Amino acid sequence: MDPTSHIPQTGRAARQAIRSRAWTGPTAGLAPGYVQANLAILPKAQAFDFLRFCVRNPKPCPVLDVTAPGAWQPASSWAEDADLRTDAPRYRVYRDGELVDEPTELGSWWRDDLVTFLLGCSFTFERALVAAGVPVRHLACGCNVPMYRTNRPCQPAGPFHGPLVVSMRPIPADLVARAVQVTARFPAVHGGPVHIGAPEALGISDLARPDYGDPVPVQPGEEPVFWACGVTPQAVALASRAPLMITHAPGHMFVTDRLDRELAVG
Amino acid sequence: MDPTSHIPQTGRAARQAIRSRAWTGPTAGLAPGYVQANLAILPKAQAFDFLRFCVRNPKPCPVLDVTAPGAWQPASSWAEDADLRTDAPRYRVYRDGELVDEPTELGSWWRDDLVTFLLGCSFTFERALVAAGVPVRHLACGCNVPMYRTNRPCQPAGPFHGPLVVSMRPIPADLVARAVQVTARFPAVHGGPVHIGAPEALGISDLARPDYGDPVPVQPGEEPVFWACGVTPQAVALASRAPLMITHAPGHMFVTDRLDRELAVG
Repeated sequence: MDPTSHIPQTGRAARQAIRSRAWTGPTAGLAPGYVQANLAILPKAQAFDFLRFCVRNPKPCPVLDVTAPGAWQPASSWAEDADLRTDAPRYRVYRDGELVDEPTELGSWWRDDLVTFLLGCSFTFERALVAAGVPVRHLACGCNVPMYRTNRPCQPAGPFHGPLVVSMRPIPADLVARAVQVTARFPAVHGGPVHIGAPEALGISDLARPDYGDPVPVQPGEEPVFWACGVTPQAVALASRAPLMITHAPGHMFVTDRLDRELAVG
Repeated sequence: MDPTSHIPQTGRAARQAIRSRAWTGPTAGLAPGYVQANLAILPKAQAFDFLRFCVRNPKPCPVLDVTAPGAWQPASSWAEDADLRTDAPRYRVYRDGELVDEPTELGSWWRDDLVTFLLGCSFTFERALVAAGVPVRHLACGCNVPMYRTNRPCQPAGPFHGPLVVSMRPIPADLVARAVQVTARFPAVHGGPVHIGAPEALGISDLARPDYGDPVPVQPGEEPVFWACGVTPQAVALASRAPLMITHAPGHMFVTDRLDRELAVG
């Protein structure tokens, strides 16, 4: 039997498998080629300033869609017949910046004033890198991408402010230009790198000690390449101690109906 | 004397000339190479849904910045020491969808709940077309670009819904591909065309009768090329009869500190 035959192959099939609890784990590898999204769910009272923050910081916070208050469906162009309360395999609930629950659905947490943000995720550009022959170290290592807080402030909006968080992928020197070209075509999922080499210029003193994720080795002949990271909006919202914020659990994303290639520009 | 010596050459100089009433006319040709922005100013009560509409329709409604309610300065990265109440040469004020005033500054109209949207403007990509050797017919004709309502609905958000409006530029057949490549690099100012040739497929029955702007001739050997148009968000907001909406007067834009080339991706 084909070992992948039970893996949902479309966004819609992935959401149905997750909603029915047939799929409960991380979503990497699910519905290959379909865009997966980070979720950030905030009360309406904070949502407008949070959206302004995202607009002002599009590289770390690429907004794919924003729902009306209380609506549990994104725009139909992103996902038909979706239910944002059940269609991620696992969620995290934060009150006043503290993790208080990690439910598999949001039934009891849902409120009529909640606004859901779908934010771009690096899965799309990592698949494009691999397809272009650029190796992605943390995928080869089977670990999380290393992420670092930088000394670069985001553009503030209302109560939301904080440093840019970056992810780092070591790239062979002769493939750095290709990595730039491939990822710059995907502004909806962080776009091209914000910084290449010289981690100290970003305020990163030790690549072996990331602030989030796992360290990966940088080999001789490789450059550390830094992309704006989707942890930024979560970290900023938590630091601002929003009274309630709900996210997907790390790696347990919302799978959309759109294809990676639809996000390419240029 | 150099006839251009009195024309402000930077975004800041342009804003100062406009604020002091040394410059009172349209802004085309002012501060060459600096990004100019469309303005849409709405009460906070409508602003969140309007921003969601823009996020869902990024080609016609590319959001450059959104202010806090009552703030008359955009993000400092867009314009330092700006005053959105005075720094466009002329404004239009609409109440319940009807034009009621065309002031040169917003002193008496300003309210503490007004949110200002800076939206991308096609000046940036037209300069890129000309620099790439692609002629722009309405510039040669010295008239407005022709614009058409289409049969394509925008993705709705809250009360905001309506058809996509497009602008049309006739392009010689051998330069259409170049026009695509040049403009696709500028997603923040409408990006690549939404449609090339076949106006009837967009529901446009007569190119000689645009819904906005002026007709321009399409010559033998040219294709009509259609881009999403910044008139879309204004038309949609007016059709929804927002109790108050303020825009720049046509052609009388807000000049920023950012350079066209900073908006290029890929």
